[in-house]
Amino acid sequence: MSEGAAKVAIVMGSQSDWETMQNGATVLEKLGVAHECRIVSAHRTPDRLVAFAKGAAAEGIQVIIAGAGGAAHLPGMIASMTHLPVLGVPVQSKALKGMDSLLSIVQMPGGIPVGTLAIGAAGATNAALLAASILALADPALSERLVAWRTAQTDSVAERPV
Amino acid sequence: MSEGAAKVAIVMGSQSDWETMQNGATVLEKLGVAHECRIVSAHRTPDRLVAFAKGAAAEGIQVIIAGAGGAAHLPGMIASMTHLPVLGVPVQSKALKGMDSLLSIVQMPGGIPVGTLAIGAAGATNAALLAASILALADPALSERLVAWRTAQTDSVAERPV
Amino acid sequence: MSEGAAKVAIVMGSQSDWETMQNGATVLEKLGVAHECRIVSAHRTPDRLVAFAKGAAAEGIQVIIAGAGGAAHLPGMIASMTHLPVLGVPVQSKALKGMDSLLSIVQMPGGIPVGTLAIGAAGATNAALLAASILALADPALSERLVAWRTAQTDSVAERPV
Amino acid sequence: MSEGAAKVAIVMGSQSDWETMQNGATVLEKLGVAHECRIVSAHRTPDRLVAFAKGAAAEGIQVIIAGAGGAAHLPGMIASMTHLPVLGVPVQSKALKGMDSLLSIVQMPGGIPVGTLAIGAAGATNAALLAASILALADPALSERLVAWRTAQTDSVAERPV
Amino acid sequence: MSEGAAKVAIVMGSQSDWETMQNGATVLEKLGVAHECRIVSAHRTPDRLVAFAKGAAAEGIQVIIAGAGGAAHLPGMIASMTHLPVLGVPVQSKALKGMDSLLSIVQMPGGIPVGTLAIGAAGATNAALLAASILALADPALSERLVAWRTAQTDSVAERPV
Amino acid sequence: MSEGAAKVAIVMGSQSDWETMQNGATVLEKLGVAHECRIVSAHRTPDRLVAFAKGAAAEGIQVIIAGAGGAAHLPGMIASMTHLPVLGVPVQSKALKGMDSLLSIVQMPGGIPVGTLAIGAAGATNAALLAASILALADPALSERLVAWRTAQTDSVAERPV
Amino acid sequence: MSEGAAKVAIVMGSQSDWETMQNGATVLEKLGVAHECRIVSAHRTPDRLVAFAKGAAAEGIQVIIAGAGGAAHLPGMIASMTHLPVLGVPVQSKALKGMDSLLSIVQMPGGIPVGTLAIGAAGATNAALLAASILALADPALSERLVAWRTAQTDSVAERPV
Amino acid sequence: MSEGAAKVAIVMGSQSDWETMQNGATVLEKLGVAHECRIVSAHRTPDRLVAFAKGAAAEGIQVIIAGAGGAAHLPGMIASMTHLPVLGVPVQSKALKGMDSLLSIVQMPGGIPVGTLAIGAAGATNAALLAASILALADPALSERLVAWRTAQTDSVAERPV
Repeated sequence: MSEGAAKVAIVMGSQSDWETMQNGATVLEKLGVAHECRIVSAHRTPDRLVAFAKGAAAEGIQVIIAGAGGAAHLPGMIASMTHLPVLGVPVQSKALKGMDSLLSIVQMPGGIPVGTLAIGAAGATNAALLAASILALADPALSERLVAWRTAQTDSVAERPV
Repeated sequence: MSEGAAKVAIVMGSQSDWETMQNGATVLEKLGVAHECRIVSAHRTPDRLVAFAKGAAAEGIQVIIAGAGGAAHLPGMIASMTHLPVLGVPVQSKALKGMDSLLSIVQMPGGIPVGTLAIGAAGATNAALLAASILALADPALSERLVAWRTAQTDSVAERPV
Repeated sequence: MSEGAAKVAIVMGSQSDWETMQNGATVLEKLGVAHECRIVSAHRTPDRLVAFAKGAAAEGIQVIIAGAGGAAHLPGMIASMTHLPVLGVPVQSKALKGMDSLLSIVQMPGGIPVGTLAIGAAGATNAALLAASILALADPALSERLVAWRTAQTDSVAERPV
Repeated sequence: MSEGAAKVAIVMGSQSDWETMQNGATVLEKLGVAHECRIVSAHRTPDRLVAFAKGAAAEGIQVIIAGAGGAAHLPGMIASMTHLPVLGVPVQSKALKGMDSLLSIVQMPGGIPVGTLAIGAAGATNAALLAASILALADPALSERLVAWRTAQTDSVAERPV
Repeated sequence: MSEGAAKVAIVMGSQSDWETMQNGATVLEKLGVAHECRIVSAHRTPDRLVAFAKGAAAEGIQVIIAGAGGAAHLPGMIASMTHLPVLGVPVQSKALKGMDSLLSIVQMPGGIPVGTLAIGAAGATNAALLAASILALADPALSERLVAWRTAQTDSVAERPV
Repeated sequence: MSEGAAKVAIVMGSQSDWETMQNGATVLEKLGVAHECRIVSAHRTPDRLVAFAKGAAAEGIQVIIAGAGGAAHLPGMIASMTHLPVLGVPVQSKALKGMDSLLSIVQMPGGIPVGTLAIGAAGATNAALLAASILALADPALSERLVAWRTAQTDSVAERPV
Repeated sequence: MSEGAAKVAIVMGSQSDWETMQNGATVLEKLGVAHECRIVSAHRTPDRLVAFAKGAAAEGIQVIIAGAGGAAHLPGMIASMTHLPVLGVPVQSKALKGMDSLLSIVQMPGGIPVGTLAIGAAGATNAALLAASILALADPALSERLVAWRTAQTDSVAERPV
Repeated sequence: MSEGAAKVAIVMGSQSDWETMQNGATVLEKLGVAHECRIVSAHRTPDRLVAFAKGAAAEGIQVIIAGAGGAAHLPGMIASMTHLPVLGVPVQSKALKGMDSLLSIVQMPGGIPVGTLAIGAAGATNAALLAASILALADPALSERLVAWRTAQTDSVAERPV
C-alpha cells in the first residue's frame, strides 16, 4: 500500500475483515489512488477510533472507507467525528449473513451520513470506486483512469454465456 | 427523578426516545432506585458520549441503561468505554419497526457485552428491572422490594379473560 | 431551488417521492449548495433516464442524489451511465416498509457503486449532507458552513429529556 | 442453442448466472422452442441493455426471460423499454440468498410488469415453461408438446418414497 | 365487466381481495380486453377451484390472473391444473404485509410456473398489463393500444416535483 | 411401514422430502402407530391430491401429516378437502431455508386449519408425536406408550455437558 | 362459556390476548364443544402454568389451545408438561407484527410438539376448528356438525366480487 | 469447572449447545469466577427447570447464563421463577440461523427481563463478561481482573491488517 500522502483511509474493525476489505485496496491500487489501511475497532479500541476519526482530515485524508460486521458501529462512529465523506462496507457476518451489518451501518439518523455499499467483497470494491469518483471531481487524471477502468469493465462482458 | 446518588443512569440518543425510556424510569422510581436520565447521542454528541461513558464509574453509576433506535450505536459504544454492566433498549424505529435497532444493539462482537432487552416500552421496563436485580445482589432491602414487586405482578393476573 | 449552476442533482422516481426527497433539498438550501430537482422514472421514462445520466457530468453536475421506492432501480441505473458519485435514498414503500427499496439500491454488483443512505427522510437529509461533504473537499467556504451546521446540530441536543 | 428465428431470448446479468439460467434453456430445447441466450448487464453494459430491449420486438423475439442477482435491475429495465412480456428470474445471491434479487425484480411499480419466478434453478425452469405456455396460445403444436411434457412430469411422480 | 368472450379471467380468494384486484380489471377495461372476475377460494371452495382451473382453456380463457393473500395457494393450484399462463398477485396481508403472500405464490417448484407480480394494487395493475402484452402477441390492434397506453404513461411523468 | 390399517398418513410433495419426513415415520414405528407414506404432489399430481384428500377419511385415516417445501401448498390443500386433522411440516428449502415453506403452510385463512410444526426434521418428529397424542385420546395403550416415550426422553437428558 | 365438562381449554398469556383468542371460543361455542378460557402467563404466573399443564388431563381436558405474543413461551411450556395435544396461536405483537410470536411457538425442538396456527384471529379460529376435528374422531355428532359448518362456509363464498 | 461456591450458573437446553456455551465457561475460568455448567431443558426436563430456577438463589448463584436455540424458552422461563439477573444466549439454529432463537429470548414481555447477548459464540463470551461485570460491582479484585482483561484485549488489536 502506498501510504505517503494517503487520500483514502481504509479502516476495518478486525483482522478478519481484511479478506473483504482488501478488495477495495486492490481497486485503489489499480487506479493509482494513494491510500492506507488500518485496523480500528470501535468496540475494542475506542480511543484509537476517536484519535483516527478526529485526526483524519488533518492528516490529509479526504475519504474514509470503513468496514465492519455484526453490530457494525465503526462507520457511523467515525462519521460522527469528522465532516469528511465516510463510506461504509457491511462485512458478511456468520449467523445473519450481513443483514445485521447492513442495518447497523445504513440506518443512520438524519444528521450523520454514511454512504453504504453492498454486503461483502462487492461492497468493498464499490467503496473504492466511489471514493475514486469523489476524488476524481478535482483530479482530471484520476477521472480519466476511472473512465478507462469503467470502459474496460464494459468491454470485458462477453456477448454469450458459455 | 432522584439524582442525588444515582446508581443507574438511563441514557438515550434523542428526546424522542424518552417516550419509550420513561417506562424504565417509572419502574426505578417505584423500586426506590436512585437514577438519572440523560440525552447522549452517539452520533450528534460523540464527545459527550466519551465523557459520559468514561466517567460513569467514577460518578458512582453502577448500571447503565442505554436506549436508541435505527443504527443504534449508543449502548455498544458506551460498553466499549466502561466495564460497568450496560443494558440496551432497542427503540422502535419508523420504517423497520425496531428490527434495525435490535440487531445494531444485540449483535456485539465477543469482548464487549450489551445485555439487550425487547424492542420498545417492554424493553425499557425490563432494563430497569434487570438493573434492579443486579443492584439487589448487594442490597437486601432492594431485593425485598423487587420480590414484592414481582409478587404483586403475579397477583395482578386475573384467572379469566373478560 | 437554485438551479443556475447546479452542482447537485436530486432526482426521484415519481412525484410521490418528493415528500421524502425534499428533506435533502432543504439541507442543500441551508448549506448554500446549488442544486436542482427532477423527476426521472427509471421505468416509466427510460429515455429521460439515459439522457440525464449520460449528460449530468457535461451539465456541471458533480454529485447525483437519487431516491426511489420498491424495485428501486433509479440510483443503480444512473450509476451505470456516469462516473459521477451517485448517492441512493430508499423511499419507504407501502407493503415492505422500504426493505425492498433498500436492498434494490444497496446490493449493487462490484463495479458500479451507489452510496446508500437510510430509508426515508433521514436518508434524504443524509444524502444531502454527504453530497455537501464531497463538494466541501474542494470548497473551503462550504466546508466551514458544513462544520458550522454540524456544530449547531451538536449544540441543539439537550442534556436532559423532558 | 437454436437461434435462427429465436422467439424467446434468455438474457442474464453475468456469466455466473448461466449456471442458473441454463435450466431454462434446457427446457426450451426439449420443447422445441427457438431461443437465444445473451449476457446483458444492466449495470456494466447499459448501452447493450438499451439496444437489446428496444430492438427485441423487431428481431422477432416474443418473450424475454431475464435473470439477475442482488440489486437485480435487468428484468425491470428491459420491461421499461419494450411492450413484450418480460419474465424475471431471481438468481440466488451469496449473502442474502436471493431475497434481494427477488424483491428487486418483483416489486415493480404499477405500469411496468415483470412476471417473476422462484429464486434459482426452479425459477429458470419455470420461466421457460411460462414462456412456452405463452407461445402455445398461438401454436397448437407447441401446446401439445407442452401438455405432453406436463403429463410426463405427472407420470414421473412415484407413489411411495424410498 | 365484459364477459361475453372473456380472454382473461381474474380470480381471487375472497371478496376482500377485490379492493386490490379491481385495479387489474380497470386496466383491462381501458385496454379493451374482454375479461371476467370470479371468486374462487382454493381453501373454502376446492371443487370450484378444480372446475375452474380444468375448464378455463375450454371456456376460451387465454390468461388467468389469480390474487390471494397469506398462505396464498390459489395461483399455484390453478397452475397445477392448466397449461394456460397463470399470473399471481400477492394481496397484502394484515400481519406480515404480504411477505407471506409473496413467498407462497412465487416460490413454486420447478415444473409449475406462476408469473408473480408485486404485492398489492401495483401487482394487480401489472398482472393486467402483462396479460395484455401476452394477448397482444397475436392481436396487433391490442398491441397498438398497449403501446399507446405506455406512451401516455411516459408522457404523464412531470419534469419537476411540486 | 405397516400399512394394513393405517391410522396416520404421511404424505410429502416429492421424493426429496423423504429425508425429512422419515423422521416422523420412525417415531410412529417406535410408538406402534399404523401408518403409511405416500408421495402426493399438490402441483405435479393435483388429481392424486384430490383423490387422496377426499378419500382419506373413508380409508380409515384419522390424522394426516403433510410435508412440503417452498411454495408448500400440500398441507393446506389437503385440509381444504377433508375434515380430518391435518398437520404440516415445512421442509427446509434451498434459498430461503424453509421460511417460505413455513409461511406457506402456517398462514392459512380462518376456516381451514393446518397444525404446523417446526422447519425440518424436528418438525417431522413432532408431527408424529402430535398425531400420536391425538390418537391416544381414544387409545389408552398408545397413551401409555407415549407417556413412556416422553419419560425416556426426559431421562436421557444428562445433568452436565461434556 | 360452557365449562361444566370442558374438553378444550383456551389459555392465553394476558388479558390483551383475549381479543384474538375469543375468535376461537366463538367457533367452539357454535360447534357445541364444551370449553373453558383461562389466563395463564408463562412468565408472570409460572406456578399457575405448571399446575394447569400438569393437571389438564386429569380435569378431563382433551385439547389445549394456547395463545401468546412476543417471546411466546406459553404453548411450548404447556406442551412440555402434558401429553395432550397442544395447539399454539401466535398473537400479533406490536413491533414485529407476530413474526416473533410465530417463531417462538413453531420452532419447538424435536420431542415436544405444538401444532401452530396462523398469526392472529385466523389462527385462533383455526385452532378451534382443529381442536374440533380432533375431538370429532371419537364423536360422530360433532363430526357431523363440523362437516355442516364446513359446507356452510363453502356455500357462503359468492361467485362474483362486488 | 470450579463448582465449589459457584456464583454463576451456565445452563443450556441440550448437549449440543455446549459447543457454543463453553466459550462463556472459558471466559469465567480466565477471570477466576466460580461457576458451574448444567443441562436444563425447558421442554424435555421441565421439573428440573423449575427446581433449578427456584433453587438457584438459595444455592448461592448470583447470575444465571442460559443458552438455547430455536423456540428458546429456557432463559425466559428461568427468569419467570427467580429474581436473579438472567442473561440469555441465542444458540445458532440450523434453518433460521438463530433469528428464531434471538426473538424467542429477547422479546420478553414487560415484567420479566432477560439480558440478551449476540447469536452464537460471541454471545456466550459476552454473557460471561457481563456476568463478571455484575459480580465486579461488589468484588474489587474481580473488577481489576476484568479491567486487565479488557486492556489486554485492546492491546491485542494490531495497527495494520496483514
